[in-house]
This record gives sequence, structure tokens and C-alpha cells, in this order.
Amino acid sequence: MKRKLRMGMVGGGPTSFIGPVHRKAVGIDGEIEIVCGAFSVVPGESEQTGAALNLDPKRVYQNYQEMFEKEKGMPADKRMDFVSVVTPNHVHFGPSKMALESGFHVIVEKPIAFSLEEAKALQKTVEKTGLILALTHTYTGYPLVKHARQMVASGQLGKVRKVFVEYPQGWLSTLLEGTGNQQASWRTDPKQSGLGGAIGDIGTHAANLAEYITGSNITEMCAMLNAVVKGRKIDDDASMLLRFDNGASGILMATQVAAGEENNLNIRVYGEKGGLEWKQQEPNTLIVKWLDRPMEVLRTGQAYLSDQAKAFTRTPAGHPEGYLEAFANIYRNVAYNIQSRLANENADPELDFPTVEDGVHGMKFIAAVVKSGTNDEVKWVAV
Amino acid sequence: MKRKLRMGMVGGGPTSFIGPVHRKAVGIDGEIEIVCGAFSVVPGESEQTGAALNLDPKRVYQNYQEMFEKEKGMPADKRMDFVSVVTPNHVHFGPSKMALESGFHVIVEKPIAFSLEEAKALQKTVEKTGLILALTHTYTGYPLVKHARQMVASGQLGKVRKVFVEYPQGWLSTLLEGTGNQQASWRTDPKQSGLGGAIGDIGTHAANLAEYITGSNITEMCAMLNAVVKGRKIDDDASMLLRFDNGASGILMATQVAAGEENNLNIRVYGEKGGLEWKQQEPNTLIVKWLDRPMEVLRTGQAYLSDQAKAFTRTPAGHPEGYLEAFANIYRNVAYNIQSRLANENADPELDFPTVEDGVHGMKFIAAVVKSGTNDEVKWVAV
Amino acid sequence: MKRKLRMGMVGGGPTSFIGPVHRKAVGIDGEIEIVCGAFSVVPGESEQTGAALNLDPKRVYQNYQEMFEKEKGMPADKRMDFVSVVTPNHVHFGPSKMALESGFHVIVEKPIAFSLEEAKALQKTVEKTGLILALTHTYTGYPLVKHARQMVASGQLGKVRKVFVEYPQGWLSTLLEGTGNQQASWRTDPKQSGLGGAIGDIGTHAANLAEYITGSNITEMCAMLNAVVKGRKIDDDASMLLRFDNGASGILMATQVAAGEENNLNIRVYGEKGGLEWKQQEPNTLIVKWLDRPMEVLRTGQAYLSDQAKAFTRTPAGHPEGYLEAFANIYRNVAYNIQSRLANENADPELDFPTVEDGVHGMKFIAAVVKSGTNDEVKWVAV
Amino acid sequence: MKRKLRMGMVGGGPTSFIGPVHRKAVGIDGEIEIVCGAFSVVPGESEQTGAALNLDPKRVYQNYQEMFEKEKGMPADKRMDFVSVVTPNHVHFGPSKMALESGFHVIVEKPIAFSLEEAKALQKTVEKTGLILALTHTYTGYPLVKHARQMVASGQLGKVRKVFVEYPQGWLSTLLEGTGNQQASWRTDPKQSGLGGAIGDIGTHAANLAEYITGSNITEMCAMLNAVVKGRKIDDDASMLLRFDNGASGILMATQVAAGEENNLNIRVYGEKGGLEWKQQEPNTLIVKWLDRPMEVLRTGQAYLSDQAKAFTRTPAGHPEGYLEAFANIYRNVAYNIQSRLANENADPELDFPTVEDGVHGMKFIAAVVKSGTNDEVKWVAV
Repeated sequence: MKRKLRMGMVGGGPTSFIGPVHRKAVGIDGEIEIVCGAFSVVPGESEQTGAALNLDPKRVYQNYQEMFEKEKGMPADKRMDFVSVVTPNHVHFGPSKMALESGFHVIVEKPIAFSLEEAKALQKTVEKTGLILALTHTYTGYPLVKHARQMVASGQLGKVRKVFVEYPQGWLSTLLEGTGNQQASWRTDPKQSGLGGAIGDIGTHAANLAEYITGSNITEMCAMLNAVVKGRKIDDDASMLLRFDNGASGILMATQVAAGEENNLNIRVYGEKGGLEWKQQEPNTLIVKWLDRPMEVLRTGQAYLSDQAKAFTRTPAGHPEGYLEAFANIYRNVAYNIQSRLANENADPELDFPTVEDGVHGMKFIAAVVKSGTNDEVKWVAV
Repeated sequence: MKRKLRMGMVGGGPTSFIGPVHRKAVGIDGEIEIVCGAFSVVPGESEQTGAALNLDPKRVYQNYQEMFEKEKGMPADKRMDFVSVVTPNHVHFGPSKMALESGFHVIVEKPIAFSLEEAKALQKTVEKTGLILALTHTYTGYPLVKHARQMVASGQLGKVRKVFVEYPQGWLSTLLEGTGNQQASWRTDPKQSGLGGAIGDIGTHAANLAEYITGSNITEMCAMLNAVVKGRKIDDDASMLLRFDNGASGILMATQVAAGEENNLNIRVYGEKGGLEWKQQEPNTLIVKWLDRPMEVLRTGQAYLSDQAKAFTRTPAGHPEGYLEAFANIYRNVAYNIQSRLANENADPELDFPTVEDGVHGMKFIAAVVKSGTNDEVKWVAV
Repeated sequence: MKRKLRMGMVGGGPTSFIGPVHRKAVGIDGEIEIVCGAFSVVPGESEQTGAALNLDPKRVYQNYQEMFEKEKGMPADKRMDFVSVVTPNHVHFGPSKMALESGFHVIVEKPIAFSLEEAKALQKTVEKTGLILALTHTYTGYPLVKHARQMVASGQLGKVRKVFVEYPQGWLSTLLEGTGNQQASWRTDPKQSGLGGAIGDIGTHAANLAEYITGSNITEMCAMLNAVVKGRKIDDDASMLLRFDNGASGILMATQVAAGEENNLNIRVYGEKGGLEWKQQEPNTLIVKWLDRPMEVLRTGQAYLSDQAKAFTRTPAGHPEGYLEAFANIYRNVAYNIQSRLANENADPELDFPTVEDGVHGMKFIAAVVKSGTNDEVKWVAV
Repeated sequence: MKRKLRMGMVGGGPTSFIGPVHRKAVGIDGEIEIVCGAFSVVPGESEQTGAALNLDPKRVYQNYQEMFEKEKGMPADKRMDFVSVVTPNHVHFGPSKMALESGFHVIVEKPIAFSLEEAKALQKTVEKTGLILALTHTYTGYPLVKHARQMVASGQLGKVRKVFVEYPQGWLSTLLEGTGNQQASWRTDPKQSGLGGAIGDIGTHAANLAEYITGSNITEMCAMLNAVVKGRKIDDDASMLLRFDNGASGILMATQVAAGEENNLNIRVYGEKGGLEWKQQEPNTLIVKWLDRPMEVLRTGQAYLSDQAKAFTRTPAGHPEGYLEAFANIYRNVAYNIQSRLANENADPELDFPTVEDGVHGMKFIAAVVKSGTNDEVKWVAV
């Protein structure tokens, strides 16, 4: 029988948005237990969060260095198995690298690092240590996204020709970072977010989703990058033409100034025989259009879905699942892979998750977008 | 600081559908810990589920009687605080009553009991013990359902005139109980489900939702009850005209033979000034229609919602929440109320949950529907 | 080659709502020409409308009696072929009967007459004269309604079990007839509208649509009829349980006090194998749900539709058609039937339109609803 | 009193798609009468169509030259007032120019001509003759498109920042022109369609819609142009980044290889305070999103719309209008303008229609797209 895996967390203190999301997602399946954390470097905050989580105060740490140091020294049946890194972008690299070097698997928020160099260094560390580094490109955790990928892979749509992926948000339509809003502040500060603003925060999700579903990589792009809101120090709006390695072409849009939009990630993929459409805000519906027969509406939890899509659903069709469940699916696959290692078994390849390679690719994508978007002369830039 | 509450479970063994749903919902917020269970009376099954949950084998029991007996005897800082009863309808009463009499709060699946008599007996036990008995009318846990109720209560729609509530499913369109399907079998067996089939299983949810949002009770009805599928021993389809105590009228439909439907609970309420519409399958959207201005689309997580609706959301707008989160909201409110008792404080009345009174009312509703639906002579039957 | 048919009109003067709708619909296909009219009995109004239509002033009449008298005497190659009667309900019978007796085919607005007696008298006149009397149950003119009927008839859904049809409007949510609004005034005046208010105005459409698609007649009902708005002299809200002659059952709702609703006629039909759903406000989409495969979305104009559905479409898929086109389809079929008679040929039975029999049946339906809705003792009333 | 205007037609013979659409649209309002035509140069076809339309055989011509010659010589109270040119692109210029020079107003299908040079020549002819030349950018005839334009113009959305406009179709996903399909054949033949395939056929509609609603012109673009289907001689797929003269930026996509799509033109415009969204396939709904309050759903025919939007609706809200009605709105405005000239009055500026300037601008747009799309070196191309 499998035991519960033990997880530590870096970041996720009292003012964090994404930290609690990770913890709630982890709680759903009951297969992972949070045992320790370095939740914040602000004095008192790590303790505050640790207490709220009913953690053993001895395992609530002041910083990640202390955590890895101490946990490493604990007996094998008590120390954490892996760490979840949920800090702002500029604090992804440090804890991820040290965790790997201390023998812990890692789940880290996207983008994987502050720069492409950091990402490559992480890749080397993963290769060296042989440990798992997973990236929370959450949207690939939705069951119907997995089904969409299988539809493409199985050739049901024919050769993919066109890919349209969009991620419009509206929450940065005003200079929110000027009001003290913490989520806005670090995301629009190049020193914390890295090269990209909207393109790093949400554009990478869109690109990852397109590449995940189509099984093709973006090879070239031509981008327009804007800082639409006056006073903003980084892009809040990106549009680009795309070329994929399978010969398809497409468009990617990621903007945070589409006033009134929430989190409207959506993708359409058209092949020779048909097309599919998925919207994150209604994630339990996948629309499939055909050249010569009626449009179909596929729904999460239905018996006609692929086995992989069915395996990622917890309730019968008609009981909506959402963002936390998609997140939980990422964690679950990482956990299954770690369990396989503990049991010296090979993991089922369908239990996939975004890897360090995806992370490096994402950083290359950001770099290419910024290169293209800041140059009005050159049309196409390679990723 | 609050401690995690300790929960036991009756039912929820290896073949249960709703047991795992309860457990996953409980896991989301991390405020409740499952410490014990009598998951099944089939030899070996309770152990199997207990082991999967990493429970202390000593607290995995063969039946609920043993569980309450033993837990009652444990020290106050170890024994469970409350029990969750997730068995078929005919096994709601026994464990609920014994739990209360053993000093444990109770959360029980709906309908509250097998018969109105049992329900009334539970009500008396609650009154006698002063403990909490909560009913999982899950759909009232959705944030926008709470907002809808507040819109009605605050008079924004004017006096309510019309209520249309529907719960179509299609999964019992064939004689599924003849194939050995366990979920179908007990639900269509009058000895396990009670007087009502579809009307008990899903009709009570629809009625509860209508009464919750409008703040009015159904006082009279005129019902048509059918066993549409040949060979079925209980109703699988119910339609009725309704009268409410505030003067409104309406229609309720609950059917399990609407081929192709999933879990399409939906409600429309029209007042003098406007109307609202909510669909369980797209629970993060509430449509509000007005006499003289554009229809509005309200969305979970938005700042313009009522405080109560906002308090029941875990992620920013655009990150869809679903059934598990609605379930978690019911548990969370019960937990908050138990915490208040532990702290000798009054609970915030906005932290509402379905009570034993709702349970008794639901049994009266079922009885009235069956009385009306089996009589082609009398037009109106009082609840 | 066919010639243009010549049409006269009774009603449709300057204050008419439905008259211009008929004329615009007639104009679409260019196969019918308006040659004369008795548009209003208010002095000067008939002339005003006639002039706006560029009619020969000699063929603009003061009343229908004069029109039929004069037109009857005109040469065969000039006199009108048929008349369109678009007056309020209490003025349907007179012109329809006289037209038939004068040798003219008739298209008349629904409900066919003020009372069942009048309707039966018209039926006898049709039988006696052998002429066509068509009723504008417009919604049966939509291509996807015709396709839905064919799906049922061909057995694709299996035996029909459940029928849910609704027609909510909101425009009579206030006492609009008290403000001088003409459309509201005659519809809520029992002396002009007949026995039924909402049930006659829109309920008959809903019933006709259900019977058209299912190919079954409503045989019994149990109705609740309300005059919700204070001061209203006739029903503005109707709900009823239904039984059909094929063994199916269902619900019909027709209300004019659903605040914020426009003209939201919709129908759902469920059979043993699947169900279908059509909404008048999005008439180019027909949703088909299946027990064991993905929901399908059928669209007007697509090659996969039945021949009959395709014949009633004027533009390729994706170019939306609406209410006027549905109306034009009714007129077109009547015109085709008249052309067949002129050519001494049999008309294609697929060129169907609502007949005097439908009209009589509709009046029986209204009578039954009023009988049931005004009696709280008897449960089921036969149509 | 106004008289009916008399219209002639060039093109629209037995195999035409768009010709009958024009005629049906013209028929709706009854203010225009078709009196003559040169429907086809294929022997016998013009007669065939003329007969089907019940035209005087003397006014059914063999070619447009004959028609203008003869009609010019007819008495003022008989000869046509204007001509509608519905031929393929390469036959727009000839009849349009000759019509103007013969004293007739012109309505011509888009794109206005085969080349920019032709378009400019037409512009000069319009200036010289002082007559009206209108272009059927049909989609600007929809009431809610007019309302959207007014919302932008009135500043309700704040300064426009982002414009996303798309026109995906799927009907050219295969080499349909290889099967003898006439609509596909001329559209994919550069000798008949001009420089652009998809970009000329539907891209110009998308660009025109974006410019119409925003009141801004596209000044620069960066385009990717593809002939996706093997063997196709012209683009069937276009994507481009856009810059507008008001400082906004955006994306335009027009493709005919989006398998399974019908005619899914849609536009989203985001300003500082809110955004709007309109889809041609559901043209009676306009979604408006706001930064700080619920999304609104505006509907055709509602009292809260702008006067201009209301003036273009023929039925009450809830009675769907579609493509033919939008077409009729274009014709109606041209007719009103011609009537004003006949009466020596100034036309109401709200009775707008696409003009020769729009046509010239559209040709410049096509030229710029082709220039950009065939050059992988230069990033931005001016319109």
C-alpha cells in the first residue's frame, strides 16, 4: 500500500494568492500531506501560516535554506518527499535548485525561473540529480485538455493546420500596481517578474496549452508587445503570429488590459477534418466541429471520453469540476510518479506533467517574444 | 487558534459514489481531518477504505454502533467531533440518531431519512441533545445561489411571482438496476430509497433550492408521478404545479429519464421587477433579467457580489469552481458552527447550512408529492 | 411558369404590429403580391396604409365586406387569390368565413377564432368550399423545427416519453393595458381576445409546437391559470401538466409576467434514445442529446439536415435566419399549395402548413385550459 | 408621399448565390421594386431569371451595356433609379462605372473592384457624377453593430485600446474548386477574385467591421498569408497584427480552412472602461463587459438601445432578425438617401451606408495585406 507523500512549501504566506490554491488542490485527493514550510521571510508570517495549517512548529522555517538543511537531516520516514515552490518568479530558481541538490523533488510555479540561464541551470541540476521537477502549467490538468490532446494525437482531426490561442484578462486595465496591490506589484516589476509581464504571467500558459494539445512546438513568431497602461514598466499586452514545427500556423494573444475579462483562456485547433474549441472558464465542455457532420459537445466525465480524460475526473458528468481539480490533477500525477520511484516501478506515461524541459522551452518562448516584440524591423524570430 | 475538527464517517466504502465526494470536499479547506470510519458492513471493506485513507486501523470500525461506542470512550482531544453519514437513505436514521445520542454532531446525506416519522424522530433528538444535524443539500453551497437568495431577500426583484425549478437527468433512461449497477439499484428499490424515487433523490434538491432562494415554502402542489421505464418499481419522473406561502406559484420537474441530460438542475425566479436564472452545470454564472434594462451576467468571485457570496469563493473570478467546492462550503459552515460552539461563541448567521428542519420539511414534501402523484382525483395537496 | 399570387389583407393598419410582419415576410420570396386591403375601419387609416404600400386606391377598401364583394366581381386575372386576416381575435371569424364563401383562400392569425363554436363553423365552411384556410403558427415554419419533427417521426429518438414546452414573456409584468398600449389592451380584454389571455396569445403556439414536433396530440391536462398582475381581467400566466395520446407526458408553461424575458419559446422532447432542444430566440441551432454519445449541435442550412429542413432555408449555414423567414415559410407553403390547385396538381405533402383542423384543436385546447385552470377540484381535464 | 424606387440588377442569374440574397432583402421592406436586369451573359439565363421574377421581358437584357443604354432612354417615371451589381469581383468595375456615367446610382458587392486602380477610378466617377455608390458590407447593417459603434463614439468604453476581429469559415478546407463548385471556383481564381482570396472575400468584411465600430482606421499591419490547401492558387488563410490611427492595436484573422466553422465573424473591442463583443452568428446579442460591474447582454429591439439601433429593427425583441434583414438595412438606407435626393432634401446622417471611400480603403487594405503577407522580411506595412 502506498503511503501519503509528505510535502513542504516555499512561499504561500499570509498575502499569497497562489499558495493557498496549491494547498487546497493538494487537499482534494488526500494523497499528500503538508508537513513543513518556509512560507515567508517576513518575520512572524511563516509561523502564522504554519499555525493556521496545524503544522508542527519545529517544521515551520524562516527561509528555504533552513528548511532544506533541517529536513535533509530528518529520518527517511519523516522528512518531506518533495517541495512546492510558490514564490514570485525571481525566487523560483534558488529554492528549486537547492531542493534538488538536497535530494527533494520539486513542483514549481511557472515560469520556471527569472531568466533562460536560470532555467538551463535547473535543467542541468535535474539531469544531474535524476529527480523530478514539475511545473504547474495548471490548464493541462483539465480532463478535456487531455482529451483534446488525444484527439489530435490519434489523427481524428487530420493534420493540424491552424491554432488560435488567447488569454485575455482585464484586471490590469488600470495602474493597479500604483495602489499597493501586491499581486499587481510583483507581476509588473521587471525585477521580480523577469523579462516578460503579461507574456510571462499568462502568455506562457497559452503557449504551453497550444503545444500540449497539438503536440507541436512553436518554432517562429512575429510579436507585438505593448505596455498599454500609462506608467507600466513592463508589457501588459502581447499578440503574435506563430509557426509550428508540424507546418501549422496560428495566433497567440495574451493581454491583461481586456477590460471586463476574467481569465478567459481559450484555444481553437483546426485540422484537415475538423476543429476543436476549449474555454477555461467553461472547462467541462469541449466543442468539436466537423467538416461534414454536426458539431459535437463533449463533456467531462462522460463514458465516451478517452481513458486518460476519464481518469482525471472525480465526479459523474454534470457535477462541474474546476480550477482546483485541474491543479490537483497536476499534483496527483507528480505524486504517482514519485510513488513509482519509491516502489522502483516505471510510471504510466499517461500520468504526464509539465517538466523542466517545458520550463526551459517556456523561457525561450518569453525571450523570443520579447526579442520580436521590441524590434519593429525583423519580422520572424526563432524560438 | 482553532484546531482541525475530527470527523468520522458512516458509509463511503469501496463502492460508494458520494462517500469519496464528501472526503474530497472535506480535504479542500484543510480544516477537518478524517479520523475514523465505519465505511461498510461488508467484511473487509471498511478496512480497505480505512487503509486507503491512512487511518489508524484501530479507528476503522465494522459498523456505526461500534464506532460511536468506542469513540465516545476516547479522550476529548482525540475522539471525533462529528460524523458524516453517507449511506443509502434507509441507513440515515440509525447512525444519525445514535451519533446525536452519543454526543456527536451529524452531517447526513439527503433525504434526511427513510420516512417522515424517522425525520421527526431525528428532529426531536436534535432538540433534546442541542447538537447540530446538517443536511447536504449541496447546491445551496454554491456562491451564486447564496447571492441569488440575497437578491430576493433584499427586494431587488420585487415580490416573487413565479418559480420554475427543474432537475433533469438521463442516467435512468434504461432499466439500469437490472444490470447490477449499484447506484441505480438502491435508488430504485423502495426498501432502500423510501417513498420516492426521482422525487426523493433529486426532487428534494430542487424543492430545497427553490425554497432557499425565494425564502418561501411550498405549501400546496399538484403532482404527476411516473415510472416511465418498464419494470421500474418506483417513480423516475415527477412534474408538479406549486404554490408558495408568499403567494408565488411555479413548476417543479425532476426526472431521471431525460435521455442525454447529465445533472441539469436549474432554477428561474421572476419577481415584479426582474428575474434570475442559475444552472448547476455552469454554476459560476448567474443571469439577472430586468424589466427595463439589459440583462446582467453575474460571475463567481467578482467584487460586486454580496459579502456572503464572496466569502464562499476560493479563487479569483475566472477560475471556475464546482461541485466539490460547493460541498466544501456546506462542510465549512458546519465546521465554523461547531468551532463557535467549542469556543462558546455565537456563530455568524450567514454561515448557514441545511438543518434538521429542512430535512423534516423535505420528507413532508416527498410525502405530499407521492400522495398527489398517486391520486388522479384530488387536484391540490398540502405539504 | 407560375405567376405571382395576388393577396388581399384584412387588418394591418397604421397601429398594427403583426400586419407589417406579414407583409415583410411576404416580400422576401417575391412570389406573392399585395393587391388590395381593408386595413382598418377607422376612417382614413385604410387609405393611409394603402398609399404607403403603393396600392391602387380603388382596391383600398373601408371594410372586408366591401373588399370581398368588389374583388369577387373582378376579372380572374386581376382579383386577389387569397386574403390574409391579421385582425384581433374577435375579428378573425367574420372575414375568414366571408372570404371562403366568396371563393378566396384564407390565411388567418392564431387563434383561429374567438370561440370554439366559431372555429367549428369555419371548419364546416372549409369543408363545404374546398378552399384552403391556413393558420400562422409561425414557429412551425423554422427549418430546424421541421427537422426536429422528422427526427421524431423517423424514430431516431425512440418512443417519445417527455415533452417540456415553455413560452415565457415579460412584457405584461405591469398593467400595460392601463397605459393605453394598444397591443396590451386588446390582448387583455376578454371581449377581444376570447376566453384566454396568455394561454390564447402564446400558449396555443407552445401547444401547437409540441404537437407538431412530437406528432402527438395533447389529450388531457391539469392547469393552473393566474391573473398575476393586479387589475388584469384575464390570465397572464398559465402552467399545466400534460398527457399525450402516444403515452408521453409533459409540462407546458406560458406566461407574460416573467419579467425580463422577451419571446423565449423553447421546447425539449425526450425519447428512449435521446432528446432534442430548440429555442426560438436562437432558432438556427437544434441541440440533440444522446444516451451514449456526445451531444450534437445541428445548424440551419447544413447539408446533413433532412431535405425538408434544407428546403426552408434561403442562405448558407452561418447566415442567420429569423422570425420573418419562418413567417415567409408558412406563406410560401400556402402559396405552393394554391399554385398546385391553379395547376390542378397535387401539392407535395412536405409543404405543410397549419390548417383549420389545427385551429379547431387550438380552440379546444384553450377551452380545456380555462376549464381546468378555473377549477381547483378536478385534476385532469380532457381536451 | 414617396414612390417605390425602381432597381435593376447586373448578375444574379440562375447559379448566383448572392443575387437572390439581394433580391430577398430588397423584398422585405417593400420600398424597392426590381424592374429590369442583365442577370447573366450565358444565353437564355437572363431570360430565365427575368421570367422567374415576373419581369417585363423587354426589360430583361443580355448584358449590362444594353441595359444601361436602353434604360437611359426610358421615360423618367419608368426607368430604373439605381442598379445593384452582384457579379464576381472582376465584373464590378465595368457595370458600376457605366451605370454612374449613365446617370444611375449604384449598389455593388464588395470588394468594390478587382484592383485598387479600378477602385480609384470609380471614386473619381462618383465625384464627377455626384451620384451614390454604395457597397454591401452587410454586417454593418445589423442593429447591434450600429449600437456598438455608438457606444464607442459616445465614449462609454473609454479610449479604445484593443480590437480583435475574426472571420473563420471552413468551407474551403478541401480543394472544392477542383470539384466544379462555382462559388469556390471564382473566389479562388486570381483572375476573377483579384489579389486576395480569403482576405478579399471575408477579410475585407472583418476590417470594415472593425473600422466601422471603432471609428478608427487601420494604418499599419503585419500579415501572414497562407494557401493552406494543396493546389490552391490564392490565399485561403490570413492573420495579421494591426495598428489603428487612434493608437489602438489588434489582431485580424480571416480564414476559410477552419474546418467546421460556418460564417463565424466576430469582434471584440476593449477600451479603458469596458469591452464589447458581437458575433454574427448570434447577431441579436451584444455583450458588454465592464471593469467594475456585471457584464451586460444587450438585445436587438430593446427600448434601452440607441435610436439608430432601434430604427433598424422590424420586430419586437425576441423575434430574431438575421442576415437578410441586415442586408435590407443597407438597401433601406441607400433607398432613403436616394429618396432624399429625389425630394431635394438632406438625408439623415444616421442613415449611413458603406461608400466608395470605404471601397477604396478596402482595396488599399487588400493590397497592404498581400504586400505584407508575401514578404517575410519587412515587419510593418502601411495601408
